[in-house]
Amino acid sequence: MDSLKVGICGLGTVASGVINVLNRNQFEISARAGCKIEVVQVASRRMRDNCDMTGISFTTDLNELVNNPDIDVVAELIGGHTLAKDLVERALKNGKHVVTANKALIAEHGNDLFSLAAENGVSLAYEAGVAGGIPIIKALREGLAANKISALAGIINGTGNFILTEMKDKARDFDDVLKEAQALGYAEADPTFDVEGIDAAHKLAILSSVAFGAPLQFSKTFTEGISNVAPEDIRNAEDLGYRIKHLGITKRQSNGIELRVHPTLIPESQLIAKVDGVMNAVLIESDAVGQTMYYGPGAGSEATASAVIADIVDIARALKAGVAPSVPPLGFSMDKMKEIPVLDIKECVSAFYLRISAEDHPGVLAEVSSIMSRHCINIESVLQKESARIGELIPLVMLTHEVQEAKIDEALKEIEMLESVSGSVKKIRVAQFAQAK
Amino acid sequence: MDSLKVGICGLGTVASGVINVLNRNQFEISARAGCKIEVVQVASRRMRDNCDMTGISFTTDLNELVNNPDIDVVAELIGGHTLAKDLVERALKNGKHVVTANKALIAEHGNDLFSLAAENGVSLAYEAGVAGGIPIIKALREGLAANKISALAGIINGTGNFILTEMKDKARDFDDVLKEAQALGYAEADPTFDVEGIDAAHKLAILSSVAFGAPLQFSKTFTEGISNVAPEDIRNAEDLGYRIKHLGITKRQSNGIELRVHPTLIPESQLIAKVDGVMNAVLIESDAVGQTMYYGPGAGSEATASAVIADIVDIARALKAGVAPSVPPLGFSMDKMKEIPVLDIKECVSAFYLRISAEDHPGVLAEVSSIMSRHCINIESVLQKESARIGELIPLVMLTHEVQEAKIDEALKEIEMLESVSGSVKKIRVAQFAQAK
Repeated sequence: MDSLKVGICGLGTVASGVINVLNRNQFEISARAGCKIEVVQVASRRMRDNCDMTGISFTTDLNELVNNPDIDVVAELIGGHTLAKDLVERALKNGKHVVTANKALIAEHGNDLFSLAAENGVSLAYEAGVAGGIPIIKALREGLAANKISALAGIINGTGNFILTEMKDKARDFDDVLKEAQALGYAEADPTFDVEGIDAAHKLAILSSVAFGAPLQFSKTFTEGISNVAPEDIRNAEDLGYRIKHLGITKRQSNGIELRVHPTLIPESQLIAKVDGVMNAVLIESDAVGQTMYYGPGAGSEATASAVIADIVDIARALKAGVAPSVPPLGFSMDKMKEIPVLDIKECVSAFYLRISAEDHPGVLAEVSSIMSRHCINIESVLQKESARIGELIPLVMLTHEVQEAKIDEALKEIEMLESVSGSVKKIRVAQFAQAK
Repeated sequence: MDSLKVGICGLGTVASGVINVLNRNQFEISARAGCKIEVVQVASRRMRDNCDMTGISFTTDLNELVNNPDIDVVAELIGGHTLAKDLVERALKNGKHVVTANKALIAEHGNDLFSLAAENGVSLAYEAGVAGGIPIIKALREGLAANKISALAGIINGTGNFILTEMKDKARDFDDVLKEAQALGYAEADPTFDVEGIDAAHKLAILSSVAFGAPLQFSKTFTEGISNVAPEDIRNAEDLGYRIKHLGITKRQSNGIELRVHPTLIPESQLIAKVDGVMNAVLIESDAVGQTMYYGPGAGSEATASAVIADIVDIARALKAGVAPSVPPLGFSMDKMKEIPVLDIKECVSAFYLRISAEDHPGVLAEVSSIMSRHCINIESVLQKESARIGELIPLVMLTHEVQEAKIDEALKEIEMLESVSGSVKKIRVAQFAQAK
């Protein structure tokens, strides 16, 4: 095999990145892959001038591409659901290896698509779908193959991390920074996917599955966005020695796995607390190696292209050796995957940050503490600010020890009924990671 | 293939870690590898009781193991040179795949050993040799396969990083912390390998080769240890917004590659500046993905075992598919590797931290600045402390812009001859990384 022939569906940011990088780095890439990697055809709604199309045939007909007998690998870079799914299915059925950057597709339809790939003796690779240019799927699936993974936490949405970083560094509020992120092109006109955690949940569902060897369970992921994080919560967290990040967390418990995306306080001594701006990072806790972390850009044309091409190189190396890639799509052999129940958020265990709006009189802390104590919730620290004027409500801020979420919710219901407490209590989860030695 | 049969040479910390992890995580490992991984024989000078040897045959004869026809993979975990080299050669010639944690062996004899492996159609894997449990070789060789790598910098010796972290956090001096590190078992009785940078140079030579596709050039690595880092340099660096780390740096320049291990000032805003204690981290700058970083424990029984087993799983997956592993040992196909000259340290370009002992009178700064200016060296910032007593020497601390080391040395020669300057100037290199977006 002198050259591996690739067809690309889509001609947007990532597709042009793939074509540009393949052109620019063709010596390095072919020296590593053991053969030339050649884009022979692109299918897209319209031609664009974001890359050099010399020698590449162009079509507006996706069918033509997936049926092209010259093509070994189809790169699905159109995104979305319906069309992409249909396209990937047809490519796999035609015996083509498929590489995609489409996390929604994998998270929501991966179980079926991986089976289909296996039936057709081809591979479906998706490194680019999670944390952009960071080779995190490879790390989990191969690099950490010896480990029982106990927990994984990731900053896996750059837009959300940019917003929280700006809010902290410049004491700005959410809406204000979101507008800037949209102006900079980091956030979409409809930012829901990013700021409400749906994008992160897609990626987390994939990471969890690879970590624990269970089928994908995106629909069971708990998500809470960052739009309710107030500047004062960020300041309080700092005063307590913490940072607030939008984390995707998946953890193994004896009765199932936790699978949740939400704003999270992290001790500032943890390296992941220092990952700022649009950068992504994934921290993994596992029994043999301990704590490892992977950091890099989670989006961008060439960063994502880097991961797409890495998957293509894996395929080239295997085909060159005469076989299909031999790493199972989700790390575990498909016949060894096991269903593991996803725990309801009420069953998840976490420490909590609580901000209570209370009257400024000495009895309040005692009342609140006594409710906590009755529910067997230990308080780690308390931050009480003085009121500026008589009669003003003050924030009473607390960090608890780890406790099941259902218990906290029961206690909060009682606290919210206290006469000296106003409105609802702000609750943000706190992540505790083993301190790296 | 129902099971891959492994023979282990050595029964020290790493070997027992491999046996323990293979036992404990046999479900996960075989589910990922697609077959059982079975240690059938251990060869070591003496039996030890650091792991469960049930079902494993024991011999004191290394020959017996490398000639054992039942064994598919030999794990060389005895360390050192002579014996290990001989052993690995014989195993490869016998058609066995070899996995090693021996960085000295790979850095100093890898070129020959990889050729020998290729001649015999087997693989020689060494993930465990660099940065312990961090899958950094896999990241470079596969995950970043699309990239032209421009620079790589690593904290790749845990002992050295522990010492520098303690010196900074507790304002202790080098000798004092070294004694503690020895008592804790982090540093050897003869600490030269760690603190003088030889261990780091072994790892750096390997990383450089994989990054740039050049044969291994360990003997050309420039090394400078950390024993001359004074507590006041660490404090001055902090005052300037920097941390001092013992970095291995390799960079591509137009006329060759830089390959150097030395104490280095890093801006504290860089994530790698915050990697403390015995932890390792490798930062990579490359054209497509940009900046990525990989963090984790660089040593320890099971952390290293994790990498050894990951290599074995790679072999198992390939053999199960019916081929030998298809990733070239140094990332590039061997016929595509190119010699790249290593630049002399004098030719390397870097910014510099300078500490000059000078008399406390207003003319000194002018004299020093005028010498710098004559050599076209730009000064970035100056830190001048007041003297406590008349006639006392004061430290004049400077950060320069980037300049070739030869130029700095010429200027320093003149500065050291000034009447108002005493003794030699302390010079520490400064690393500038592209700021992550």
